[in-house]
Amino acid sequence: MSETTTARQRANAIRALAMDAVQAANSGHPGMPMGMADMAEVLWREFFSHNPNNPAWADRDRFVLSNGHGSMLIYALLHLTGYDLPMDELRNFRQLHSKTPGHPEYGETPGVETTTGPLGQGMAAAVGMALAERLLASEFNTEEHSVVDHYTYTFTGDGCMMEGISHEACSLAGTLGLGKLIALYDDNDISIDGEVSGWFLDDTPARFEAYGWQVIRNVDGHDPVEVRMALETARETADKPTLICCKTTIGFGADNAGTAATHGAPLGAEGITAARKTLGWDYPPFEIPDAIQTDWDARAAGAEAEGAWNTQFEAYAAAHPDKAAEFTRRIAGERPADLVEQLNNLVEKTQAEGKPNATRKASQAVLNAIAPGMPELLGGSADLTGSNGTLWKGAEAVAPGRLEGRYINYGVREFAMTAIGNGLALHGGLVPYSGTFLTFSDYARNAVRLAALMGVQNILVYTHDSIGLGEDGPTHQPIEHCASLRLMPGLNLWRPADDVETAVAWESALLRTDGPTALALTRQTVKHHARSAEQLANTRKGGYVLAGCDGEPQAIIIGTGSELDQATDAAEALNAAGIATRVVSMPCEEIFAAQPREYQDSVLPPAVAARVAIEAGATAGWYRWVGQGGRVIGIDRYGYSAPAPAVYEALGITAEAAEAAVRELLG
Amino acid sequence: MSETTTARQRANAIRALAMDAVQAANSGHPGMPMGMADMAEVLWREFFSHNPNNPAWADRDRFVLSNGHGSMLIYALLHLTGYDLPMDELRNFRQLHSKTPGHPEYGETPGVETTTGPLGQGMAAAVGMALAERLLASEFNTEEHSVVDHYTYTFTGDGCMMEGISHEACSLAGTLGLGKLIALYDDNDISIDGEVSGWFLDDTPARFEAYGWQVIRNVDGHDPVEVRMALETARETADKPTLICCKTTIGFGADNAGTAATHGAPLGAEGITAARKTLGWDYPPFEIPDAIQTDWDARAAGAEAEGAWNTQFEAYAAAHPDKAAEFTRRIAGERPADLVEQLNNLVEKTQAEGKPNATRKASQAVLNAIAPGMPELLGGSADLTGSNGTLWKGAEAVAPGRLEGRYINYGVREFAMTAIGNGLALHGGLVPYSGTFLTFSDYARNAVRLAALMGVQNILVYTHDSIGLGEDGPTHQPIEHCASLRLMPGLNLWRPADDVETAVAWESALLRTDGPTALALTRQTVKHHARSAEQLANTRKGGYVLAGCDGEPQAIIIGTGSELDQATDAAEALNAAGIATRVVSMPCEEIFAAQPREYQDSVLPPAVAARVAIEAGATAGWYRWVGQGGRVIGIDRYGYSAPAPAVYEALGITAEAAEAAVRELLG
Repeated sequence: MSETTTARQRANAIRALAMDAVQAANSGHPGMPMGMADMAEVLWREFFSHNPNNPAWADRDRFVLSNGHGSMLIYALLHLTGYDLPMDELRNFRQLHSKTPGHPEYGETPGVETTTGPLGQGMAAAVGMALAERLLASEFNTEEHSVVDHYTYTFTGDGCMMEGISHEACSLAGTLGLGKLIALYDDNDISIDGEVSGWFLDDTPARFEAYGWQVIRNVDGHDPVEVRMALETARETADKPTLICCKTTIGFGADNAGTAATHGAPLGAEGITAARKTLGWDYPPFEIPDAIQTDWDARAAGAEAEGAWNTQFEAYAAAHPDKAAEFTRRIAGERPADLVEQLNNLVEKTQAEGKPNATRKASQAVLNAIAPGMPELLGGSADLTGSNGTLWKGAEAVAPGRLEGRYINYGVREFAMTAIGNGLALHGGLVPYSGTFLTFSDYARNAVRLAALMGVQNILVYTHDSIGLGEDGPTHQPIEHCASLRLMPGLNLWRPADDVETAVAWESALLRTDGPTALALTRQTVKHHARSAEQLANTRKGGYVLAGCDGEPQAIIIGTGSELDQATDAAEALNAAGIATRVVSMPCEEIFAAQPREYQDSVLPPAVAARVAIEAGATAGWYRWVGQGGRVIGIDRYGYSAPAPAVYEALGITAEAAEAAVRELLG
Repeated sequence: MSETTTARQRANAIRALAMDAVQAANSGHPGMPMGMADMAEVLWREFFSHNPNNPAWADRDRFVLSNGHGSMLIYALLHLTGYDLPMDELRNFRQLHSKTPGHPEYGETPGVETTTGPLGQGMAAAVGMALAERLLASEFNTEEHSVVDHYTYTFTGDGCMMEGISHEACSLAGTLGLGKLIALYDDNDISIDGEVSGWFLDDTPARFEAYGWQVIRNVDGHDPVEVRMALETARETADKPTLICCKTTIGFGADNAGTAATHGAPLGAEGITAARKTLGWDYPPFEIPDAIQTDWDARAAGAEAEGAWNTQFEAYAAAHPDKAAEFTRRIAGERPADLVEQLNNLVEKTQAEGKPNATRKASQAVLNAIAPGMPELLGGSADLTGSNGTLWKGAEAVAPGRLEGRYINYGVREFAMTAIGNGLALHGGLVPYSGTFLTFSDYARNAVRLAALMGVQNILVYTHDSIGLGEDGPTHQPIEHCASLRLMPGLNLWRPADDVETAVAWESALLRTDGPTALALTRQTVKHHARSAEQLANTRKGGYVLAGCDGEPQAIIIGTGSELDQATDAAEALNAAGIATRVVSMPCEEIFAAQPREYQDSVLPPAVAARVAIEAGATAGWYRWVGQGGRVIGIDRYGYSAPAPAVYEALGITAEAAEAAVRELLG
């Protein structure tokens, strides 16, 4: 502890920066940073192990601000401790192209470990990071060397606690006993609508004890001694995550502290003057006295901490060169040296030897082939393991008391599963994939969006991708899901038509390190299609000519996934009848849309106006490719509970319909 | 209790029907009905107040099978107690157009109160029903007459308990003290992946006590005496909902009872033979012995129960004719007699006197005008009341210990809010609307889908509908949301451009009694547009000619919501430059798409190929209207944290861009 500055003064530096930046931006959330500043001061100065000069240090502690609207808290912390976040960036809070966006954005600010703001998801990402840490520790540490050994801390507020995902994520964290996960709860009794006693009377400590967490109650979040003791207790407990419940005053220091008024609006010039007086903070906006700045500076300590780890890692590398090389590769996010070749071989072999199969089973075959040689691949399912085909031969499941393995039984927790996947990917060293039914991507949708927004490799296996699942009926039959996932910027959705396209989809998903990929897979068996070498290569372009006539066609039928079978059947009938018809398979519209115009035009020649698309789902997205004059055979209503063939027939998703549409277009 | 049949025999009737129907369909879930049959027997025979001959009786108890995959349980119960669900329908389980779809579907089967299957949402719907009951009771009951006085029961399994929505919904139910809500938990230790001890170690009873529920632990779900005692205790507690935790054996009676193998697949002919033997059930498939059928038949008791209520209601109507008439109207789902006129007047007044405004504020103005005269309208927000503009002047909020009022502070619980809204609407007597930011519709998406699938009037107020929200940045800025909600069958999405279109949108939402409507509303101020009487009338057609040139245009610009301003600015500049340009406003694409082709062509003349659409969101959906040759000014990436005008500029959503696109198209 410094002798020249007090903890309160150092915390007040955060408060002042938060007030001033929100005021300058004329928007933002001062209440939370002012309320949690004392807690942050203790955590970041006394416990948090990090190196401001190297935010990528592999064994740093992770910090997740789950109540991300309080972004000025982390920006202040990063600035004060010495990250590359100069004061000008704080002055530019919430301005275009600043490093200080309204909510913390991964990739925009050094030291921000994940994007937060959508409440509750930060907690789940923290669970993912803490899980990654334990899995990598079990994989890489030896009796003598703990090269993976860090804590994951998360700050959370009432909003996160009300969100359902906090239940899913924290229940799983408790079940698995993630002892190095420490959550600090800003229990300030206030949310945007006012005092939470009107809508949130949970006994949150009891709730978390029910999850198997260690809970430390009634900590005064403004008393550094109490916060320190709680953190020490939390860190000593190895087999349970810890929730530290801190009573705080939102907007601490402001005249209207303790009310929702401080939550999400500037305090105003007068309010800030008054708060400065209350806090005894006599300095101008965006000025931090040298003594306080010095006592916050973590660069020397950080360099020392990382240096010690580096020394340890050198010894580890000397004793276990293979492990060390593998660890280095994994943390760098590099793929196994032979992965590209392995995948290519698998694709070619599947083309040569393929057979009719459900694409979910073809997907499992890919995992069986690739996963053993790709140790960073970590699978899982939201309690649909057998149906999703996500478990590969030889994969061991992680379990309570056994934090090692290659597979997570996530339980029926789609949203947390996906957000935990984001945390696993963000931690580094692992490439997560996880499965559920496509229709339940709805439950996880905003976590998919965050994966896409952050550009993290989180692979989403969505089986039972259409009415083709049959009897489970409308609640389980996706209609709008493929079209709607295609709209999400940064997400690639593959809907492969057969075993070959499934292998290509996995290839794309595994090699795409800078973003998420979703795979929409059938429950039912589909045909295996023949392809030339050129066609096989073009499969990787997201859309390609699969079959049809010689020369320029009169008509084109575009199909995806299981409906490629209807497309080829229709084209066969049309070609036999002398109507030159081309079949285009479009397993990944996003990748096709990113091809050069010449390639697109070679697949879909502009001169051919008679175009039909067939997909067992919402039609609207297809007009982009068939034009206003084209036809879309699809489904803009909900399905039926019945065997799949009956549902296809009842909803008119048939080769006959595609054939008739072509004939009609050609008049 | 009957003297001729035992409780176990009656329960075995359910088990046999479940086994046989799943076997006949060769798909389905026998495990849950066989496990919960004894509990269902006690509840439905001894406590459940209903009338099989009138599933619409207003004061019936409500029953929600939240673990809806066990649909054969409720089909068996409905058949056995005398609903219009003949044995042939059970034989036809999961077949096309049967009344026995794979999961219970509202509207398909008499006695099914809500669609379930997507786990956890049934519990939330039950919370909504129980809340509706208490609100209507407080509104309509008098000291002498309790015309609204029924229980809501829900069955739930481990899957529901793992889902986050169970936290959100049950936390709110506990906070509000919904004493007439009784949940029976099928605590069988099994989910699809196997024994839940690998992924779900919650102390669920402790968790629910933390929510403020009464919890009855360790009930033997196969012992009618224990179940009966628990239900009696639950019903006696008026101020807390009750969770009855029943230990059961999944697939009770089957050889592989107690394992996941019984969960979701037929037992097979041999398995069924063995189970029949174990259960002592010697009857052929789909045959119920007369004595057992007689003891299940609830028609006489149901008629008596409803008759008693009718008698009471007559006395109530004599004493309080106005209240009785109002209650009858409300339960019938009829709107106030003058609502259409009120809305029409409001629309015309807004057109005449309107002014620039944020559409979220225009929305609040509609509520202030309409809600006082529409007492069934029940508002709420997921902790964004001020931002959403969902609270109208004079609305009192429901609160713990005060179950009356017109507004619900749902807390930060978007998913439960929406699913509770479904339950409120399904109960009857109330028309719910609820607010959050549009981007967080993601959190609630599958409940929106269920509203659309069921066709219930659940009105969704989504504010902050684009990058126009500014500084909160990419996590909060919707991009794909409008386009993606438009894909959802049965949902109408309005994105009104000004105060007038906002009033029209609300008019549509309030008068659409057979489906949900979502309103996408701006944070920022938008212009008020002039309209002729004809244009005003056409606003209701979802798309219409707002402005432009005389006669046939050379070009058309289609705009929605806040971007109608850019569209009109661009058209003004083009018309001034001699390029005849029409502006089409399309606030509700779904309604426009449902207009006759002639009307559509009058708005978008086929001869006019130079078409530009402008919307601050994903572009893909617009090609349907602008054609392949058209241009879409939109956003297919994530936004920025910055003041709104800067974000619009940075992403090119400007009048200049629209103007340039038209000029380019015209070459």
